[in-house]
Amino acid sequence: MLFKIGFCQFKPALLEKEKNIAKMCSLVDEIQADLIVFPELCTSGYVFCEKSEVQEFADDFESSKTTRLFTELSQKNNTAYVIGFPEKHDRKLYNSSMLINPDGTKHLYRKIHLFNEEKQWFAPGDLGFNVHQTKYGVLVGQMICFDWIFPEAARTLMLKGAQIIAHPANLVLPWCQKAMITRSLENRVYTITCNRTGTEVNQDKEFYFTGMSQVVSPLGEVLCDADKIEERVVVFEIDIESADDKQITKYNNILEDRIPEFYKY
Amino acid sequence: MLFKIGFCQFKPALLEKEKNIAKMCSLVDEIQADLIVFPELCTSGYVFCEKSEVQEFADDFESSKTTRLFTELSQKNNTAYVIGFPEKHDRKLYNSSMLINPDGTKHLYRKIHLFNEEKQWFAPGDLGFNVHQTKYGVLVGQMICFDWIFPEAARTLMLKGAQIIAHPANLVLPWCQKAMITRSLENRVYTITCNRTGTEVNQDKEFYFTGMSQVVSPLGEVLCDADKIEERVVVFEIDIESADDKQITKYNNILEDRIPEFYKY
Repeated sequence: MLFKIGFCQFKPALLEKEKNIAKMCSLVDEIQADLIVFPELCTSGYVFCEKSEVQEFADDFESSKTTRLFTELSQKNNTAYVIGFPEKHDRKLYNSSMLINPDGTKHLYRKIHLFNEEKQWFAPGDLGFNVHQTKYGVLVGQMICFDWIFPEAARTLMLKGAQIIAHPANLVLPWCQKAMITRSLENRVYTITCNRTGTEVNQDKEFYFTGMSQVVSPLGEVLCDADKIEERVVVFEIDIESADDKQITKYNNILEDRIPEFYKY
Repeated sequence: MLFKIGFCQFKPALLEKEKNIAKMCSLVDEIQADLIVFPELCTSGYVFCEKSEVQEFADDFESSKTTRLFTELSQKNNTAYVIGFPEKHDRKLYNSSMLINPDGTKHLYRKIHLFNEEKQWFAPGDLGFNVHQTKYGVLVGQMICFDWIFPEAARTLMLKGAQIIAHPANLVLPWCQKAMITRSLENRVYTITCNRTGTEVNQDKEFYFTGMSQVVSPLGEVLCDADKIEERVVVFEIDIESADDKQITKYNNILEDRIPEFYKY
């Protein structure tokens, strides 16, 4: 089955939620696709200096205006979205992403491996790595940014059945995009890494984000990508069943050849 | 502590063990190093058509002339070697590698993830992934070729304490070398991938091996490498302690940040 997936790479404005959401809506307006991934924390920006900044722009996943707006956008465009956002729940903050489906179903991921100062603002994810259905029953797993460096993240999603790994990111270093080729290959899944662009300054902090969002096939091919600075939606039509083919030679199957009795965890 | 590691990339001749061993001895003669890795199955060549071919050139690890010769070579050059060879033991054949230390100690690895037709000749490794001491107590783990695609292989070696992963290979595709950069990064270890070169023909089979052997640092830097065809020893002096530094930001430690309760195996 053909399935159109991609990413919306852009530069969020720090602490300007309404402006960011308006830009996101505008960028994907009338884009025909099945699944589009946005960057990590893209409703709020990234470079926080105080927990209170996160608190102010964090949303409740179940009941927020933000969730409602993206649900309407998903229905309007008949496109599922994965969107990184700061979440508040039970007096805790999480670095989260939401999978919003056109049928109104929605699924939450809370970032498990927090990077650097994120540990000052966010609690570590407590929901695990899970796989959920999107359009046509396609199975999507979510992970966020720094989760990439732990091979167990993508592995767990594949072992739970993910055909596509949706991967919102705010990357400042060049390693991840190449590593995601390995993640696709070693798991035979599609990966969509959506990184943000632009420089963000807050007090004495300055971060330059490196864009280069990409969609990678189960064979490790970069199917489409963006450059370091452009704000752009890129989509590519994939054959989703190829993520189910774990046979890599006549004698090798990437699932059946695993020998967990020899693996240490 | 400075420690000189590298690889001996060359083209073994199919089913010509004595010639191959003579070439290996000649290539590393008078090379000052601490640890040098040779390719997979480099005493025998790779493209077998019959199990009897493997049987004829397979060596007993404990008592063979091959092991004795490499032990003498190790002592003579005061260099540890990791050498891929076909092993026979208890009427079974294994695709194995031996770590031979100058002090006479030696350690065996039997390839766990066999590739394609190797399953026709070899039994899967039954010894697990283990880490052993080499010169100055440096900790070396062994894996062979196709083990690279299973992130659990390098992960297990790192979790068991490996500072260096010695990785003999017979690669025909270009994915592994890039993936080994990810393996070094995600585990913060040195990796030495030694691939063979040349074309090998046996009956109707023809394989072109792609060389491009490399040493990668725990930070994902390719410290030294070879091209696709050259037969060459390349060594590089590393700071071995940097493989023990698993702290990657002020708040992140690649070992302590793992959350196995969320990982599926």
